[in-house]
Amino acid sequence: MIALDAMGGDFAPRTAVQGAIAAAKQNISIQLFGDEDQIVPLLYQMCPDWTSLPLTVVHCSDEIDMGQEPSKSVLKKKDSSLVKAVQAVADGKASAVVSAGNSGAALVAGTLILGRAPRVMRPAIGDFIPTNNGSIFCIDLGANTDSKPAYLEQFAQMGHVYVHMVKNIESPRIALLSNGSEPYKGSSLVKQAYILLEKSHLNFIGNIESRDIFSCDADVLVCDGFVGNILLKALQGATGAISHWLKKETSSSWLSKLYFYLGSTIFNKLKRKTDYAKKGGALLLGLNYPFIVAHGCSNAAAIEQALIFAHQIEEEKFVKLFNEQVAALAEKRSGVTMVVSQKLRSIFGFRQH
Amino acid sequence: MIALDAMGGDFAPRTAVQGAIAAAKQNISIQLFGDEDQIVPLLYQMCPDWTSLPLTVVHCSDEIDMGQEPSKSVLKKKDSSLVKAVQAVADGKASAVVSAGNSGAALVAGTLILGRAPRVMRPAIGDFIPTNNGSIFCIDLGANTDSKPAYLEQFAQMGHVYVHMVKNIESPRIALLSNGSEPYKGSSLVKQAYILLEKSHLNFIGNIESRDIFSCDADVLVCDGFVGNILLKALQGATGAISHWLKKETSSSWLSKLYFYLGSTIFNKLKRKTDYAKKGGALLLGLNYPFIVAHGCSNAAAIEQALIFAHQIEEEKFVKLFNEQVAALAEKRSGVTMVVSQKLRSIFGFRQH
Repeated sequence: MIALDAMGGDFAPRTAVQGAIAAAKQNISIQLFGDEDQIVPLLYQMCPDWTSLPLTVVHCSDEIDMGQEPSKSVLKKKDSSLVKAVQAVADGKASAVVSAGNSGAALVAGTLILGRAPRVMRPAIGDFIPTNNGSIFCIDLGANTDSKPAYLEQFAQMGHVYVHMVKNIESPRIALLSNGSEPYKGSSLVKQAYILLEKSHLNFIGNIESRDIFSCDADVLVCDGFVGNILLKALQGATGAISHWLKKETSSSWLSKLYFYLGSTIFNKLKRKTDYAKKGGALLLGLNYPFIVAHGCSNAAAIEQALIFAHQIEEEKFVKLFNEQVAALAEKRSGVTMVVSQKLRSIFGFRQH
Repeated sequence: MIALDAMGGDFAPRTAVQGAIAAAKQNISIQLFGDEDQIVPLLYQMCPDWTSLPLTVVHCSDEIDMGQEPSKSVLKKKDSSLVKAVQAVADGKASAVVSAGNSGAALVAGTLILGRAPRVMRPAIGDFIPTNNGSIFCIDLGANTDSKPAYLEQFAQMGHVYVHMVKNIESPRIALLSNGSEPYKGSSLVKQAYILLEKSHLNFIGNIESRDIFSCDADVLVCDGFVGNILLKALQGATGAISHWLKKETSSSWLSKLYFYLGSTIFNKLKRKTDYAKKGGALLLGLNYPFIVAHGCSNAAAIEQALIFAHQIEEEKFVKLFNEQVAALAEKRSGVTMVVSQKLRSIFGFRQH
């Protein structure tokens, strides 16, 4: 059973309802948390026989808006769709939660209600960014806006475990995002994290600059959540701007129009490559239970993907395995063996590496 | 007279010598600082009658490499090309300095030898990033890797003055780079800077996310130097990666090859648009004298542009005017009138706005 915060996201609850119907048709059980006066009519409208699907609605009288301050709203709004959906997982009524709402509030609710996994200091958001030769796993992409050196070391450990499990790389190469490749470069936070990583048992390869992430040979890129968020959104912004400029250039002459016509296939391929939202959302790493944070601007297809992703990682007990490995690494226990199934890797889009 | 650190940069001294010859042919007086055993033969090789140009060579027995720790190397290497070039400006023998070398060392040398302008807490690097509808002035792009809220407020003041002078905008709209547009978003540094900017007399329009910088209506984007550097290089990296992917796609089929052939003009236009190094370098703002920091990877044309830029801003007394305005703003003096010449704006590529 997946708990879905149906009121979270820019186009909620419509996209949530539509995504949930699509996922439920693939035999995934979903509980929709939100205002039943809005949700039930939408369900009947989009799928008249929705009651035959594994879908249930749990009424919530409140919701947390994108503009609300996370900690306060989570603590005050006990009857909000987010808090109740997360609580359902903590109570064992659902096995994973999905929300496209206020991500700061999601982090607070996840940490307070689901709890941090053993040995984890701060949960983090990690995801793959496509590069010239594959992809790089970036962590943290926005969960922690103020970090300490030890948090960055743990993000590196989480990145190590994630990439090991998902890509089957024995010893992932870990890099630190900085303003220069030299060891002395960086904010004081980065410089201190550099020292910790150098001393660690991880395969630390040093600093890399943001312009080199597409061509570097690192598997994991470690940064604090504020910087990671700026980086991720800059890449999205640049992709959008370049596409905009190309379109503008290509609409100004006859030759250009022909060029644009010929190029539509290529553009579409490119768009898929730079679509960081393919999986529908990112996993909040370091919590006791699976929590998938989807983009605020998610459409129904993205919500559907996030629900499928939540279902698949739960079937493979990914979060349990992941947390065990992170704790072992934090405790510097030796002889940790990791059994990673082929199926688990395929969930993340990676087969035999 | 412009002082050029001829040993700074990835392709020095060759690019420095070639760029200096090109600029000297446009009647700009240049003093080349560096190893005369390398520089003089290059001068004869590239321009046999170079002695008829306004070019002189000042021998320096040392240089500062890219990999060296800035503060230590500046303090120790008194006979390095960088330190001697900067010293020439402080001594009144040259009016501006250009270096494509270690930018951290440039900042240290600039601050220690040229001194901070009145009321300036920290010098900063600011430059324009092209957007969908023009450009946005970003400050700081890398001078300060650890900032305080008051520094960010002053970067905003410097951005205000710069854009006012260069674009002739009466009250530039100032935005703060954050991980969300809501006022409560951001690192603790950004949240504190938000409060200072809200109280200031600047035209502060709030937070913006990095994905929105291409489409937002802000004139100035304020950030700390570490984040600004990550942002700038991420945009450069994304431009390169997208161009790489497009080329890869367009080399795989007959139709694609035709597409690529047709598109070369468009690609070249785009490349020019995303070439942040058009002026050859950025001005270090907040110092008593003009200091232009060029990219480490500068070619001869970029060095030439940086020298021309240095000469032009010096002719218009830009730095003197700029520093007066920043001091007035910091002291909250009223009735500051600013006389901005049409010529000055054209130097920066902006005419009547």
